[in-house]
Amino acid sequence: MPRDAYVVGVGATNYGKLDKTLREAACEAALGAIDVAGLDPDRIDGGFVANALGMAERQGHLGPLVMTSLGIPDKPASSIEAACASGASAFREAYVNVAGGFADCYLAVGVEKVSSIDSITATGYFAYASDYVYEGNCGASFPGLYATIARAHMKKHGTTEEDLARVAVKNHENALLNPKAHLKKRITVEDVLKSTVVSTPLKMFDACPFSDGAAAALVATKEVAERLGGPMIRIAGVGRAGSLAALPDRTDLTSLTGAKIATKQALAQAKLGIHDVDFFELHDCFTIAELVAMEDLGIAEPGKAAAMVRDGVTARGGDVPVNASGGLKAKGHPVAATGLGQVYEIYNQIAGKVSGERQLRSVKTGLAHNVGATGGSVAVTILQGEN
Amino acid sequence: MPRDAYVVGVGATNYGKLDKTLREAACEAALGAIDVAGLDPDRIDGGFVANALGMAERQGHLGPLVMTSLGIPDKPASSIEAACASGASAFREAYVNVAGGFADCYLAVGVEKVSSIDSITATGYFAYASDYVYEGNCGASFPGLYATIARAHMKKHGTTEEDLARVAVKNHENALLNPKAHLKKRITVEDVLKSTVVSTPLKMFDACPFSDGAAAALVATKEVAERLGGPMIRIAGVGRAGSLAALPDRTDLTSLTGAKIATKQALAQAKLGIHDVDFFELHDCFTIAELVAMEDLGIAEPGKAAAMVRDGVTARGGDVPVNASGGLKAKGHPVAATGLGQVYEIYNQIAGKVSGERQLRSVKTGLAHNVGATGGSVAVTILQGEN
Repeated sequence: MPRDAYVVGVGATNYGKLDKTLREAACEAALGAIDVAGLDPDRIDGGFVANALGMAERQGHLGPLVMTSLGIPDKPASSIEAACASGASAFREAYVNVAGGFADCYLAVGVEKVSSIDSITATGYFAYASDYVYEGNCGASFPGLYATIARAHMKKHGTTEEDLARVAVKNHENALLNPKAHLKKRITVEDVLKSTVVSTPLKMFDACPFSDGAAAALVATKEVAERLGGPMIRIAGVGRAGSLAALPDRTDLTSLTGAKIATKQALAQAKLGIHDVDFFELHDCFTIAELVAMEDLGIAEPGKAAAMVRDGVTARGGDVPVNASGGLKAKGHPVAATGLGQVYEIYNQIAGKVSGERQLRSVKTGLAHNVGATGGSVAVTILQGEN
Repeated sequence: MPRDAYVVGVGATNYGKLDKTLREAACEAALGAIDVAGLDPDRIDGGFVANALGMAERQGHLGPLVMTSLGIPDKPASSIEAACASGASAFREAYVNVAGGFADCYLAVGVEKVSSIDSITATGYFAYASDYVYEGNCGASFPGLYATIARAHMKKHGTTEEDLARVAVKNHENALLNPKAHLKKRITVEDVLKSTVVSTPLKMFDACPFSDGAAAALVATKEVAERLGGPMIRIAGVGRAGSLAALPDRTDLTSLTGAKIATKQALAQAKLGIHDVDFFELHDCFTIAELVAMEDLGIAEPGKAAAMVRDGVTARGGDVPVNASGGLKAKGHPVAATGLGQVYEIYNQIAGKVSGERQLRSVKTGLAHNVGATGGSVAVTILQGEN
């Protein structure tokens, strides 16, 4: 059996438009995690750099650049890509290296720089993460694919445009208090409904922004974590699964198979039920995605997520806070950094390190759900505080 | 301590110009490995897809495409990139998943399609794997960087252009007998010396070709390997390290730090000395790279590798066969597939499955050495037959 592993440090840049190179952003996040951990970088055995769109910046092979800049060039680092689930996938492999006995401390850092390309080009470029032959190449970029999911959900469950809008309103409200968030703008349901149509029924305010950003986490053994003396936050469960790559192949568009499987794996490893989890960071690249995620994870019964959002259950002060960070929707979505940004948020919430009103009360167990494309890749991570 | 893991199947496409998509090539290799193993694909717990230049084909997020096409869409797969060491890096993580107790069987498949871009564009694109700000962007693409290494080696050790040429002649000779090889052309030292200068002192025949291709390996537990009933070929040692990303930062250009460290790790794990290894697949992207590798691994003392090549010690019939496959130089170099192609060769040599004269006699232990860029990433793999 794999041994226990802990998150001993996290770091992140601001999300938004950054005047930094990929290397600078990645190192800012990694150095943040090293600083929080109070770790000598030489103790890091290796790392993974999550990145999806570095080639747009003419830079592949980011691992050695990051390790060289951290002053540990001998330590190996591979890049990991699983579209928008790259960050949590890199975190999972860092965890596997430590829990599997191959390392005492591993770094996972995710980084993306998208502001160098305009948003129309970026949408086209993002479509390379779809099954390009059958989707992107036929004009089905992600707004269209998620709009298809939204329409299916509306048809099956009677979900309305107002239901979707409420997810955006909640997440924008949370991001207002997050100093690292990309979008800091209070919006109303009316604002969302009146915003520019992107792909019916999704409008501009149903979609997350393209963000630059980086986030990092250090995973270590129990011995290392105890020696460092920080909060003991254990990686209680990690799930990783997939779904049929292309939407046209699926029989049900209102659910992502990979999310269900990965959640089941993570909960089984953590020996928890979904209702034992105190709070969630869910992959809300579009508002519909948060509702689908709530239903796939079992937070809500199929078709019942919208009512929970409407009733404030998932608000910051509700029983089951979802995306207290602002989520991808408003905190921002620096693609490959996103999954590690979720870990950053969950670590800080459990450690009680979130400033002001955004700090959740008495939270011990948090779950991060990170999706690549329309579910081709899904990674679920459960962290649990032991203090 | 991690448990033992075995290679239970390998597969590969031909190398060269392939009229296949990335997905088709990857699946041909993966299905080859599944067939050799005699495995029900449902028994595969997950995978890694090594790819460096898929974005040139507008396809990222290859994992779900491959798993979907293999009929196991629920199983997760992340892409791994470490430039030209992507293949062995993916293999290493598949090994870590199995040996670390997270899976009973994992797939590693590497794939590249480069023939869709012309070779000048490809050289520019490949340079994205350098430290682009300080190298590629300044005009230092890989032929220039390896030429710098060659000049340093010539100055320090008196290596000659003929010494380099002999590496090419040997590897072309080997590739003549390899049905999957890209370049099947017998050449002489004279041919190499007279070929077009690429970057002094390197000429066209000192350089490997850009190849399309895919290669795959299945890693499994001892229990699975025994049940499948194939040859028992154990992963005896795996090393993974890095070097300072950019050549200008290094004090010695005649050696790659990461290669020395990764070799030391792999040999220590295997409890072997370098001279216990029967044969080698070394990363000869340029002829100079094979000489540097021989010296970094300790096959030859510094400055003495050229004499071993000249004396036929590393020829197919010599005491220490190096690149009996033809190497990157003549078998071909489908970037992210290369490291897995080396595993393919070593598995088949140990299993006695190589047809004709190319089969090495009484080989039990083989070592693969896979380098990303100019050593920023290095992975070393030792396989050992137990039958």
